[in-house]
Amino acid sequence: MVEPATDTKSAVRTVALLKDELDIVIPTIRNLDFLEMWRPFFEPYHLIIVQDGDPTKTIKVPDGFDYELYNRNDINKILGPKASCISFKDSACRCFGYMVSKKKYIFTIDDDCFVAKDPTGKAINALEQHIKNLLCPSTPFFFNTLYDPFREGADFVRGYPFSLREGVPTAVSHGLWLNIPDYDAPTQLVKPLERNTRYVDAVMTIPKGTLFPMCGMNLAFHRELIGPAMYFGLMGDGQPIGRYDDMWAGWCIKVICDHLGLGVKTGLPYIYHSKASNPFVNLRKEYKGIFWQEEIIPFFQAVSLPKDCTTVQKCYIELAKMVKDKLGKIDPYFDKLADAMVTWIDAWDELNPIGAANKGKKA
Amino acid sequence: MVEPATDTKSAVRTVALLKDELDIVIPTIRNLDFLEMWRPFFEPYHLIIVQDGDPTKTIKVPDGFDYELYNRNDINKILGPKASCISFKDSACRCFGYMVSKKKYIFTIDDDCFVAKDPTGKAINALEQHIKNLLCPSTPFFFNTLYDPFREGADFVRGYPFSLREGVPTAVSHGLWLNIPDYDAPTQLVKPLERNTRYVDAVMTIPKGTLFPMCGMNLAFHRELIGPAMYFGLMGDGQPIGRYDDMWAGWCIKVICDHLGLGVKTGLPYIYHSKASNPFVNLRKEYKGIFWQEEIIPFFQAVSLPKDCTTVQKCYIELAKMVKDKLGKIDPYFDKLADAMVTWIDAWDELNPIGAANKGKKA
Repeated sequence: MVEPATDTKSAVRTVALLKDELDIVIPTIRNLDFLEMWRPFFEPYHLIIVQDGDPTKTIKVPDGFDYELYNRNDINKILGPKASCISFKDSACRCFGYMVSKKKYIFTIDDDCFVAKDPTGKAINALEQHIKNLLCPSTPFFFNTLYDPFREGADFVRGYPFSLREGVPTAVSHGLWLNIPDYDAPTQLVKPLERNTRYVDAVMTIPKGTLFPMCGMNLAFHRELIGPAMYFGLMGDGQPIGRYDDMWAGWCIKVICDHLGLGVKTGLPYIYHSKASNPFVNLRKEYKGIFWQEEIIPFFQAVSLPKDCTTVQKCYIELAKMVKDKLGKIDPYFDKLADAMVTWIDAWDELNPIGAANKGKKA
Repeated sequence: MVEPATDTKSAVRTVALLKDELDIVIPTIRNLDFLEMWRPFFEPYHLIIVQDGDPTKTIKVPDGFDYELYNRNDINKILGPKASCISFKDSACRCFGYMVSKKKYIFTIDDDCFVAKDPTGKAINALEQHIKNLLCPSTPFFFNTLYDPFREGADFVRGYPFSLREGVPTAVSHGLWLNIPDYDAPTQLVKPLERNTRYVDAVMTIPKGTLFPMCGMNLAFHRELIGPAMYFGLMGDGQPIGRYDDMWAGWCIKVICDHLGLGVKTGLPYIYHSKASNPFVNLRKEYKGIFWQEEIIPFFQAVSLPKDCTTVQKCYIELAKMVKDKLGKIDPYFDKLADAMVTWIDAWDELNPIGAANKGKKA
């Protein structure tokens, strides 16, 4: 069995990297007691809490954290009719936090994620590792067999082309989970007792042209480089599907990163995922996605964006058109989703006017 | 510092998997004392030793090993004029061993590779791990963030398409190295003291469409599925280049595996690589490859094999034509190499007539 780190108070407080350039986005429906364990690592940072569900409920945040909190009423007030693109009763609502942030980087984490321990028993500062991943380049054009060549004690191996050793900017850092793995409902049902106990000490770039299942539980990204593509879609209340919010975002960001020459890394850091969600509830949310994805993934594998799509926004609008055109025939839901993708970009651009980036924090 | 396992005599002798279906191929110029450390793991298997350099020298093999040994005179006698495709004074000569084997699987290892220890201190049976890699499927079409989904305690994560979970047959298993990493001469010169001490507990499939630097030091493959493409090229004596034998084979097998729907895995097992080769000598061997690879890799990235290439041999002959056509202009060497690729296939087919596979061992 793996265990979470139970005493993080004694964790050495290292320098908080990028503390004025990164927001932590947390979607939640409950009091944020889980932050206590993260205190030594998160306290220097600003939190954006996106309260899902009943807006009259009060969410308690432990003392000492610097945060802003948005409930559904706030979202409706800020976005007006464009609030339709933000999911309700689904953690997909977290992407509202990406939009209102004015920082360069985002780290997002679920409230059932605790501090994991590395094999030596040391509490893992997940945020610090994500920042390291984001600050060093990715290598999407050729595989390095010793994993991240920029890590201490590693390098490019014999036969790695020298022209590719500069790498490309890293846009996304995808972290993993010890204890409860991120399985779909069928796998949860078949393997109710499976726990992830394997700590794989590696970070790697997902190669260009390869899609991956991006999980939103423990994820960081360069908001200025890829933010407008980090839309978690329409899930939950009133929608025919759930639990595909992060997957949708993952497919979109990957084809756009590939097009724009940006990198996506996966591997470290691990968090400790405390409890499995209900597989029966999950099955109800997922079952349409399970067969839809058999068509969606070949669609994304075939996406080729035009050369004149030189910004994330242009890429995303083009992708929305393709979604409407090619996926609309699967289900009318994809027409609605394609429209929401356009609304999302409108809202993003409204809240993030060009030239205003990093000029000041939203009140 | 990492250390090799020094007492493997006490290693538990597990069942020797596939002992009648796998040959161990070792290229060498010296006495094979290194086999003593591998005895508990290799003794049940048949060895094919390819003696490089002076054929009058006697290579001593420790007692108790079952082996056949070929020196240059033997190669010339068996292949006649076709022996021109087998390199001399370069470990590329090892591929002769692949050709004369009649087994389904090959494991090849350098004679400066010792038994590594896992993080618990246990001696690693590298061959056993390679066999596990080869016997379970690969997943080249979509990335699994928890690495090899077929490993105990792991599975496909949420969002992995169910239609792809059967995987494809694994053709190649590429193992790694603790202690001396497989660096090129410039990196050796710049980082003379760098040692690989990081044990990454993962096996993964290299995605379709992604090339990798394949190292021949610790490598296993399914000879029946990919053997005819595992040609290590023209290196060493009389050639303008060295140390690109395994790279060449790696580029070729990868595009052919991608075309035929076969998998390539990398990661575990580790061996302990005992000593760095001379970086100055390596630089002399490599320097042409260092700039040639800047054109060779884009060539391989663009390779698209015709649909009627349904066997490895057909793919390889087609590739030879493309090499002649596209790389011949870099240097006349590639014309010679393209011809040698055709000779290699001729020789392979002569020694491995269709229908004779596994019918009996060559005398």
